[in-house]
Amino acid sequence: MSSSNTQIVIAALPKDKLDESHFSLREVPMPEPGDGEVLVKTRYLSLDAANRAWMQGATYKAPVVAGEVMHGMTLSEVVESNHADLSPGDIVECSSGWQRFAVHKPKELGKIEVRGSLSNQLSIFGISGMTAYFGLLKCGRPKDGETLVVSAAAGAAGNFVGQIGKIKGCRVVGIAGSDEKCAWLTDDLGFDAAINYKTTKVGKGLAEHCPDGIDVYFDNVGGDILEAVLFQMNLNGRIACCGAVSQYDTGNPQAGPRGVPGLIVVKRLTMQGFIVSDYFAEREQASDEMAEWLADGKLKVVEDIIDGLEHAPRSLIGLLHGENFGKRMICVG
Amino acid sequence: MSSSNTQIVIAALPKDKLDESHFSLREVPMPEPGDGEVLVKTRYLSLDAANRAWMQGATYKAPVVAGEVMHGMTLSEVVESNHADLSPGDIVECSSGWQRFAVHKPKELGKIEVRGSLSNQLSIFGISGMTAYFGLLKCGRPKDGETLVVSAAAGAAGNFVGQIGKIKGCRVVGIAGSDEKCAWLTDDLGFDAAINYKTTKVGKGLAEHCPDGIDVYFDNVGGDILEAVLFQMNLNGRIACCGAVSQYDTGNPQAGPRGVPGLIVVKRLTMQGFIVSDYFAEREQASDEMAEWLADGKLKVVEDIIDGLEHAPRSLIGLLHGENFGKRMICVG
Repeated sequence: MSSSNTQIVIAALPKDKLDESHFSLREVPMPEPGDGEVLVKTRYLSLDAANRAWMQGATYKAPVVAGEVMHGMTLSEVVESNHADLSPGDIVECSSGWQRFAVHKPKELGKIEVRGSLSNQLSIFGISGMTAYFGLLKCGRPKDGETLVVSAAAGAAGNFVGQIGKIKGCRVVGIAGSDEKCAWLTDDLGFDAAINYKTTKVGKGLAEHCPDGIDVYFDNVGGDILEAVLFQMNLNGRIACCGAVSQYDTGNPQAGPRGVPGLIVVKRLTMQGFIVSDYFAEREQASDEMAEWLADGKLKVVEDIIDGLEHAPRSLIGLLHGENFGKRMICVG
Repeated sequence: MSSSNTQIVIAALPKDKLDESHFSLREVPMPEPGDGEVLVKTRYLSLDAANRAWMQGATYKAPVVAGEVMHGMTLSEVVESNHADLSPGDIVECSSGWQRFAVHKPKELGKIEVRGSLSNQLSIFGISGMTAYFGLLKCGRPKDGETLVVSAAAGAAGNFVGQIGKIKGCRVVGIAGSDEKCAWLTDDLGFDAAINYKTTKVGKGLAEHCPDGIDVYFDNVGGDILEAVLFQMNLNGRIACCGAVSQYDTGNPQAGPRGVPGLIVVKRLTMQGFIVSDYFAEREQASDEMAEWLADGKLKVVEDIIDGLEHAPRSLIGLLHGENFGKRMICVG
């Protein structure tokens, strides 16, 4: 086994756009597990737009601090255990961050039964699939025949949101950042329509593709797109607030959308924020249902896997610029 | 009976602040009920901040148009009926607008059993009491020991919201526009604290008076106060969106609050808009409960009654400037 550990640290917090100069790579000695602790090896590192939000200060977790190992969700394998509940070879979810090895207390690890491929534990059965499943079904509550709009529709959660929306009988309209993504959503994933927000006015696109208005909006982006959607929501519509990626990679987040709270009142809208882990008590049955849809060919899994921990900085930056189709992750080893 | 009908019409829609020049008074012939129709006499006219929002365009109802009788909710008495279901003397709720007499079809009238005084049908048992009751209990869902904040707290709905919050075991903090109102809220109505937003920074006042954060916010105002509250909401907090009065009396509504949707996500907040009539299926039992609280001395009713239809314009303008304590209405006759 390696005698050193590779880490990527935040050299300096970004004041505006994130770039590679904000990261640095270092080799440190292998950590050693103490009494009751476990040494894990990172197999896959999840890259998520929220990683950038963590650099803006406290969110639902501690903020990222300069000089620290960059935070991140990982899928890891136990290599050495000083605790009876865990054995070498066990696969666990944890937040080891951007490094090859880490020592954890057992309570920081979630042991999982692997379904499908290992990487599937970060996509369909992991944070992106579960975010889509719970956010859409618990907060969006789509009904057969309703119109569902999802932003960042080609992203990790968004593509599942649209696919689940189709399974639930909705008209599904995606918003994404390129014609190639839009074509992928409609041609490969079965979306009814897709709007390229970089070349089309979103309000105009929505008016064209949502002739009966919008009943459910799964919002990954906030900002101007949320504002445009608000004006076309139907009475009693639901907005699942999953993220605000339009506001993450900046030092100067914009004001909120016009129409808040005026349109929320007159249209009796519900906007509900959520974090996927709030629903993990129901994760097993959600995974069973997702597995069934996958087996029946109703759901496609798209993963964007990049090899090599050293590529994590440019891969996260690329994700913030909308490079990825589906769930982006780093195969660490 | 009078042979003419007094009406107040919107002479011109306001482009910015509403003033008395936007209204004019006229005498027109008495309307005559046709087959199946009913002639009603306005007893009380409800004045509501929403009246001003109706002048900004379509909301949950048709907009107010220049040259028309000003819209308004009324408590009226049937004086002549060509329909078997209604008889002279019956008291009805309707939207006759700012006039002494009106002809309606029966479906436009809601016959009511009068509880307490006639004016109580517009306060505790009418739109303000019911707005407070349903908005707080259905959308705010306060629990014993939680902290509730309400804006426009000395207003028609706000004062009931705070009183019901106390009955439900909450710490209640009101936001209002004068020291006199604040003293009334704490000394007469039992609020735990009140913040004068004209002399105190709301964020600072909330930090002082809500040491455990805010669980429920009943929002009557939107704008900067909503923004200040958002930053101090607790995890899983609920915001009942009742109105946005800060944005009504202007031709240029401001952008939405910062923190939407970012704080909604990270704090898992729910913002829910409502209109009181959505809950009218449950109105009887709500009125029963309010009557019980009133009888037990747990709830006070404060009405701000102004005599004379001709005073409606200045009374609405005054309401928009925060003159009223409790429910403002016009006693028409």
